[in-house]
Amino acid sequence: MSNERIAVLAHEKFPDRAKTALGVIRYGDQDVRAVLDRDRAGDRVRDHVPDVDDAPIVASFADAYAAADGDLDALYIGIAPIGGGFDESWRSDVRAAIEAGCDVVSGLHYFLDDDEALAALADEHGVELRDVREPDDDLTVATGGSRDVDADVVLTVGTDCSVGKMTASLEIVAAARERGIDAAFVPTGQTGIMIAGWGNPIDRVVSDFAAGAVEEMLVEVGDDHDLLVVEGQGSILHPAYSAVTCGILHGAMPDGLVLCHAAGREAIHGYESFDIAPVDEYVDCYEGLADPIHETAVVAGAVNTKDLADDDAAAAAVSEFADAAGVPATDPVRHGADRIVEALLDAGLGAE
Amino acid sequence: MSNERIAVLAHEKFPDRAKTALGVIRYGDQDVRAVLDRDRAGDRVRDHVPDVDDAPIVASFADAYAAADGDLDALYIGIAPIGGGFDESWRSDVRAAIEAGCDVVSGLHYFLDDDEALAALADEHGVELRDVREPDDDLTVATGGSRDVDADVVLTVGTDCSVGKMTASLEIVAAARERGIDAAFVPTGQTGIMIAGWGNPIDRVVSDFAAGAVEEMLVEVGDDHDLLVVEGQGSILHPAYSAVTCGILHGAMPDGLVLCHAAGREAIHGYESFDIAPVDEYVDCYEGLADPIHETAVVAGAVNTKDLADDDAAAAAVSEFADAAGVPATDPVRHGADRIVEALLDAGLGAE
Repeated sequence: MSNERIAVLAHEKFPDRAKTALGVIRYGDQDVRAVLDRDRAGDRVRDHVPDVDDAPIVASFADAYAAADGDLDALYIGIAPIGGGFDESWRSDVRAAIEAGCDVVSGLHYFLDDDEALAALADEHGVELRDVREPDDDLTVATGGSRDVDADVVLTVGTDCSVGKMTASLEIVAAARERGIDAAFVPTGQTGIMIAGWGNPIDRVVSDFAAGAVEEMLVEVGDDHDLLVVEGQGSILHPAYSAVTCGILHGAMPDGLVLCHAAGREAIHGYESFDIAPVDEYVDCYEGLADPIHETAVVAGAVNTKDLADDDAAAAAVSEFADAAGVPATDPVRHGADRIVEALLDAGLGAE
Repeated sequence: MSNERIAVLAHEKFPDRAKTALGVIRYGDQDVRAVLDRDRAGDRVRDHVPDVDDAPIVASFADAYAAADGDLDALYIGIAPIGGGFDESWRSDVRAAIEAGCDVVSGLHYFLDDDEALAALADEHGVELRDVREPDDDLTVATGGSRDVDADVVLTVGTDCSVGKMTASLEIVAAARERGIDAAFVPTGQTGIMIAGWGNPIDRVVSDFAAGAVEEMLVEVGDDHDLLVVEGQGSILHPAYSAVTCGILHGAMPDGLVLCHAAGREAIHGYESFDIAPVDEYVDCYEGLADPIHETAVVAGAVNTKDLADDDAAAAAVSEFADAAGVPATDPVRHGADRIVEALLDAGLGAE
């Protein structure tokens, strides 16, 4: 939630394997008072990530509490093991947080609230265990209502998982606001929800309700803003996760799409025997699937060049992608998302 | 389950609005001893559906039990109100069935096993409440394993919901077996599961696991048959249900697709402000989405002409669809599915 004073747990993984921790530090409104990583205790956040607000890295919740002079509202779980389980080595920190009167916020598949010992302790101390990946139980099927949302709706889509769709979405919102556009981020995954403090975790929603869970969010905030940037998930050409992607695509009924790609990625992440298709196939596939339900097109590209140290190589990768996709492109982290916002405005999206 | 002696509840809806009841009567291995429909009590099944095994239509479970001389193993709920709720007017029949020692089999969204009164009564009488729409809790993400299944895999896909994908799948399996092909039906929805006695209800599976739940079934039975016909769900161009369709498409990794259509349907069922796209757009969309993951193509069409009384009009509708889709087509109910099986064989699918 906004302005919460928090500590972020990222044991043994900060910063490179702590996507959630980094997302919250970089994009959240929360006031991050400490990061827990027992391997890097004594360092500072800025020793590893130069361009964000600084905070101490500590070994335990007790140390975080001391470093924050006791001014902490919540402990965020900022990492996830493969499979989304709970690592027992975190239990003492989670218990200490509860005992100090802090809420615990988690995007794990393992729900803290289903852990009887933690739930009892939270009850005893009057704090909340917020499992952001647990869907509301009043979700239902889509009605087609996203078509009538007042705001212009842009959706980030990808050539794969983990290519930077959430980051691109947040950077587009920031760049649009810089230009005075009333833009808002619509989160669909656990990290986005932890950053924004609201949202539906579409990958955990019953598949029949996936589109409906997106629609419910757009209908809720659609009249309050001029531009909504919906965080995409997965990829439409993916052996495991395309159902989530497809539900978001039809549930959001976007007016424009931003295609996200990781420079140099050739095989599907974690499914290395499946190739990434040529870029133009993704464009055709997303447009061919979305347009018959609600008129749309790919209007810009976001290329994640973080694995390219060299600026020239990054520029070449962005340029190559823009040519292949036939739209303007940029790396929104390296160069900002202004070029994408310009492309949206050129397509008539985001103006009042 | 095979050879179960059953009564089927279809109050006030038999036969035209009792899709599940009709499916079980027509395609199940169960021995249907009576149909419950208080509006048609005294009639016979064959008074309404000429080409299936006959049974009396009765007003209550007590009457069904009497008509079956007490030889009943289970009561099947053969209808579903919009929303999948439990109609309280059925409760006395469900209670009577449990008290007579019968299992109760239901595909409702409302799980009988979560109804404390019914669950307690079932416990007391040692019978099972089988909620076929409740997914197994050990489902997980797809690994891509469907690609390695020995059997040829065919998936029915549609231009809309409720166009006859389950029926087409069952008719294809029957026609293939007639030719001596070792074919099996892979159910993905509640009616298919009630007919076949196994299967995963993909529309109720967490969207992240939709493809995985299909893969799990194919891996389980893929070495036992030469041809698997996977029951499709929904439509890939649908404002609400496309996530389910997409998960099945990538989870099954079909070698061939059979495109199903309801003759004369112009708008999406229940979403009348959304047009059905031209047939060739569906072909392009399904192929464009499936082929990059696993080579496939639409190889035949199944046209549901039940709303056309006239044989000539039906033949014209089938012919028009075949031309538009560019593949051989038939109405598998009116004319049998042999033409589809021929098209599969021509495409190299289903031969040992």
